[in-house]
Amino acid sequence: MEQEHAPLILVCNDDGIFAAGIRALARRMSTIGRVVVVAPNQQQSAVGHALTVSSPLRIEQFELEDGLHGYAINGTPADCVKIAAQHLLDTPPDILVSGINHGRNTAVSLVYSGTVSGATEGTMLGIPSIAFSLDSHARDADFSAAAEVTARVVEHVLEEGLPEGTLLNLNVPNLPLGEIAGISVVPQGRSYWNDRYEERLDPIGQPYYWLKGEYVRDGEGCDDDALDRNCAALTPIRPRLTDHHYLEKLRGDPPMLRDIDPES
Amino acid sequence: MEQEHAPLILVCNDDGIFAAGIRALARRMSTIGRVVVVAPNQQQSAVGHALTVSSPLRIEQFELEDGLHGYAINGTPADCVKIAAQHLLDTPPDILVSGINHGRNTAVSLVYSGTVSGATEGTMLGIPSIAFSLDSHARDADFSAAAEVTARVVEHVLEEGLPEGTLLNLNVPNLPLGEIAGISVVPQGRSYWNDRYEERLDPIGQPYYWLKGEYVRDGEGCDDDALDRNCAALTPIRPRLTDHHYLEKLRGDPPMLRDIDPES
Repeated sequence: MEQEHAPLILVCNDDGIFAAGIRALARRMSTIGRVVVVAPNQQQSAVGHALTVSSPLRIEQFELEDGLHGYAINGTPADCVKIAAQHLLDTPPDILVSGINHGRNTAVSLVYSGTVSGATEGTMLGIPSIAFSLDSHARDADFSAAAEVTARVVEHVLEEGLPEGTLLNLNVPNLPLGEIAGISVVPQGRSYWNDRYEERLDPIGQPYYWLKGEYVRDGEGCDDDALDRNCAALTPIRPRLTDHHYLEKLRGDPPMLRDIDPES
Repeated sequence: MEQEHAPLILVCNDDGIFAAGIRALARRMSTIGRVVVVAPNQQQSAVGHALTVSSPLRIEQFELEDGLHGYAINGTPADCVKIAAQHLLDTPPDILVSGINHGRNTAVSLVYSGTVSGATEGTMLGIPSIAFSLDSHARDADFSAAAEVTARVVEHVLEEGLPEGTLLNLNVPNLPLGEIAGISVVPQGRSYWNDRYEERLDPIGQPYYWLKGEYVRDGEGCDDDALDRNCAALTPIRPRLTDHHYLEKLRGDPPMLRDIDPES
């Protein structure tokens, strides 16, 4: 990584451009390099790796209160990263940062998270990418300590790079900087949501359903555990999905799976 | 797997309940077990693992033309599977089948695919799950051979089960059954989309953007290659994302990453 020029930092999120988390992140990143913000024009939580393919995207240019340039897109985090890299930017960004998400993204949530999907899209486009989340859903959450921790990780990645195809996922505890016990490198946990649907009636008596879940803790020494220990949890993730172990077993299975007899 | 009772088969997709692929699949599955169809009420391609969390879901009961029971949901494939398993069904399904998708789901498309995400949600809920796709975007595509191949895989999984946390992804070439050369067990490929955005002007002169991509082939001996050889491509996938290799390396990195000094 050449440091003669200030690095170009692409900032996205899934909470939308009006979220406090992305502003804290963009502001802190502007002390490290040139910042371009490309974010959804509204809340896009739990959109997973959705991509807008059957409707057109609109791009609205805007200026953050402190002079940071940005674009609001009527799409998902993955749309934002794709249109930034393939259309808006003249040169590829040196790094992509996604967040800071309002609420932790650990364990099973990695599959649903728009914050993580923004970073995943960056990785698939060859950009070193990191997803950041603060472990708080409070409306007035303070993102300043989290922004400081993200800066350390960003500086590390700008110096050391990342393996091709791998991204980082960082969750920061909701504490003042001095009370964060460090950054712990941990695997994705196995916690999950025990979901149910609450049935309600609308004003004309028709039922509708709200998803309600409780988080069930599972896994040891993982991302959720690190947060319990007041550590930021750093997890390298890799969106390559083949189960090589079971693949080998399947290859040894009876031929009925491999040879189709159209007469049977 | 006990065969005394007909297995309960949950059928979902991302092309929506009016798609030809899900009807072909449900019809064929009804010769194997009891079928319940729970599918989006409209096209949900490329939604990835989106989940509807900030608006309510509606459930509409319907009957397919040949007497199969089903439910249409104003949500994503993951919503459909969750609400089926957690609300609509009295007993857990013995198997979940997602598809048959209109178009292949190989390589990078696994990350975007709503068809795969339906099966992923099933897996996360503990249901043996399989995603099926036909390698054709033709409006009048014939799903009958693909339905036959899916039945072989479903029967295999009903007999043998699947490892906890692993699902299967099957792509079927667009050929008559007699011309399909077999089922090849292959890893996820590395092909990707080379995307760009086409700028157009709306009737009042404002720009909008359509995603256009070309598929770039990469990887050998993988899912796309199997389809080239006129084989159905069967790939076991596992939505656990930790990059354990890089995790070990990061753990050996300089302490600056782990110990935060609030004074620095």
